[in-house]
Amino acid sequence: MSVEQTIVDMAREAKEAARVVARLGAREKDAVLEGIARMLLDEASTIKEENEKDLKAAREKGLSEAMIDRLTVGDAVIESMAQGLRDVVKLPDPVGTVTGMWLRPNGLQVGRVRIPLGVIAMIYESRPNATIDAAALCLKAGNAVILRGGSEAFHSNAALSQIIQRALRENGMPEAAAQVIPVTDRAAVNVLLAQEEYVDLIIPRGGEGLIRFVVDNAKIPVLKHYKGVCHVYVDEDADLGMAEEIAFNAKAQRAGVCNAMETLLVHEGVAASFLPPMAKRFTEAGVELRGCPKTRDILPDAKEAKEEDWPMEYLDLILAVKVVSSMEEAMDHIGTYGSAHTEAIVTSDLACARRFLKEVDASVVLVNASTRFNDGGELGLGAEIGISTSKLHAYGPMGLEELTTTKFVVFGDGQVRT
Amino acid sequence: MSVEQTIVDMAREAKEAARVVARLGAREKDAVLEGIARMLLDEASTIKEENEKDLKAAREKGLSEAMIDRLTVGDAVIESMAQGLRDVVKLPDPVGTVTGMWLRPNGLQVGRVRIPLGVIAMIYESRPNATIDAAALCLKAGNAVILRGGSEAFHSNAALSQIIQRALRENGMPEAAAQVIPVTDRAAVNVLLAQEEYVDLIIPRGGEGLIRFVVDNAKIPVLKHYKGVCHVYVDEDADLGMAEEIAFNAKAQRAGVCNAMETLLVHEGVAASFLPPMAKRFTEAGVELRGCPKTRDILPDAKEAKEEDWPMEYLDLILAVKVVSSMEEAMDHIGTYGSAHTEAIVTSDLACARRFLKEVDASVVLVNASTRFNDGGELGLGAEIGISTSKLHAYGPMGLEELTTTKFVVFGDGQVRT
Repeated sequence: MSVEQTIVDMAREAKEAARVVARLGAREKDAVLEGIARMLLDEASTIKEENEKDLKAAREKGLSEAMIDRLTVGDAVIESMAQGLRDVVKLPDPVGTVTGMWLRPNGLQVGRVRIPLGVIAMIYESRPNATIDAAALCLKAGNAVILRGGSEAFHSNAALSQIIQRALRENGMPEAAAQVIPVTDRAAVNVLLAQEEYVDLIIPRGGEGLIRFVVDNAKIPVLKHYKGVCHVYVDEDADLGMAEEIAFNAKAQRAGVCNAMETLLVHEGVAASFLPPMAKRFTEAGVELRGCPKTRDILPDAKEAKEEDWPMEYLDLILAVKVVSSMEEAMDHIGTYGSAHTEAIVTSDLACARRFLKEVDASVVLVNASTRFNDGGELGLGAEIGISTSKLHAYGPMGLEELTTTKFVVFGDGQVRT
Repeated sequence: MSVEQTIVDMAREAKEAARVVARLGAREKDAVLEGIARMLLDEASTIKEENEKDLKAAREKGLSEAMIDRLTVGDAVIESMAQGLRDVVKLPDPVGTVTGMWLRPNGLQVGRVRIPLGVIAMIYESRPNATIDAAALCLKAGNAVILRGGSEAFHSNAALSQIIQRALRENGMPEAAAQVIPVTDRAAVNVLLAQEEYVDLIIPRGGEGLIRFVVDNAKIPVLKHYKGVCHVYVDEDADLGMAEEIAFNAKAQRAGVCNAMETLLVHEGVAASFLPPMAKRFTEAGVELRGCPKTRDILPDAKEAKEEDWPMEYLDLILAVKVVSSMEEAMDHIGTYGSAHTEAIVTSDLACARRFLKEVDASVVLVNASTRFNDGGELGLGAEIGISTSKLHAYGPMGLEELTTTKFVVFGDGQVRT
């Protein structure tokens, strides 16, 4: 069968399965997730064997240690996948929630009820555990899901797919409710992106190149962020000890993620006292600093920040630093170079905090907290399938609710329009 | 200046204006809307003169009487535009509403705040009053708007644009907050659809051809419905008097609109008693009936419904009629031929009502009420800018809230991630 036919069949079957999944109660959906969790643990050795095939190929291809680390599925990763499933089981089922109900003057009772989106396709380059995480969230929200992982994780994802399929089957659910695309052919993605009749939403996760490819070619709505160029602005009225902790955490706690800080903005009134100890701590942690001229007046050892540094997502132990003369200048810089992902201010001034929160356009805006909190789990959504920096449908981390929509239901007793 | 440059400049200026509009309070936005309403009434004669130019051209082109009627802006239409503006003034401003706020175990306070979408482009073929309605809703929700009406309403829209621009100016707001595209060139639409850097959302309203063109060519999210193939299902347990009133209203109260009924589904248990008086009433009102074989057994005068009738949006005094053997058959028919727009059941049976509401996938599902209630005003949203049958962001009528999104705001006192 051709790749095209394979994908079209999968999409059509997913649409049919979506109708079944949409009607299930939480108990039935949770049973599948529990089943997957159990089988993951029971079949850990098979999963690790299959993962070893991917790791061998990765080593032969000379992939970096960081990438091989991301690809590795050991006992701890399997444990965490099973725990993730059980965490999703504990989350309330969003489907069927009435988000509002009101009475019209003519007696019509109008309500909005949460319903699944339908079929969600996820295209990702991440660790194999994304396969399990995405399947769990999509199913719990009542959707069917089509998963397309990276070719480097092909065997691992296939093994996880076997488990998902078995759990669906054993619980009397259609296997098409959660399918992993069984071919590595890039053409499969193009075909998938054109299935507007069957697929309701595409979520790409990975490098900017993958995401641009998906956005440019999809005929289906896409929720995504291209990159996270996140800033921490240390205001003139900041508690400098707090600012140092927040900035250090935002950059160095985990540098390779989208909610890590890429540029530190410091008010000129506190730059001379704040920057030297901050720089010392960053340097000790191996963070390379690239500063504007005013920064380098204070930190002569810092490299020179060039124009191309300001919009850069380093995803690495590199930090651009700029001294600004006002909060307005900081907000202008964020408006020009930011990516609408995560922006933080450290300040003790109420008016500044309120103004920054109101005027900065980003999916998550924080006062006196690390940018690293832009995460569905950390913000209390329970879990997340990704972060959106597009404003339509979801802006910020996407949890179970963001995998649903609402429809209107109307109860009448014979009303007609006059 | 080239058409391309004109549109790109408009879009860029709209983006800048959007930042200003986003920060305004309701009082400032309402002042603009009041200003437009006042000027519409004051300058009614100018508007009518400009409209006359469009009407003259339309007559010369030989447009149908129905189209000329839609294009005509007389005193009643001007009055209703002014009233529409004042109705929007009375609606609560959605911007700044906190839709939820909660405390995390680490003390972080997390909230979601409603914010404008940014720049909305509307492309429409409708009556000139759409220019005023859309401008009012987009501005009230804190957005900038770019309006592209049909070429047949060019002079009328230009006159309305003058008024909008003056009201913005007199209230100290950037004129780019609400712009009407000043060229009829079709190329302008193509350029507009590519301005993803500046435009956040496209709303097309008009015929299916226009909407498909927009969806196929836009690099920007689109909210739309292609068509409304709406059904009324008369259940075995329906109050037949109520069913007759609802079906008659759904078809005949206004046949040329998207929420009018196009197919009537009747349970075989009541078809013989329900259809003859229903058919008589329809025939007297000039409605042509096209029936399935079982329908024509009961109504020998009905024309034969062909396969192509079932997915048809007649927008006219024509009705397809099908007798079904069960509610399941009715729901299957709706699933196959419906357009996810509006679906209604008439029944006195609670279980049937609940099941129909749950299982039918449409933006508005009604029990014992006319399909004609799928309308933002009728459902209590205050007003509407359109109806969406896509599930992302908005499903159903779109009011002020649907022209906004939410961002996360986080208050901490030094929290970092561990």
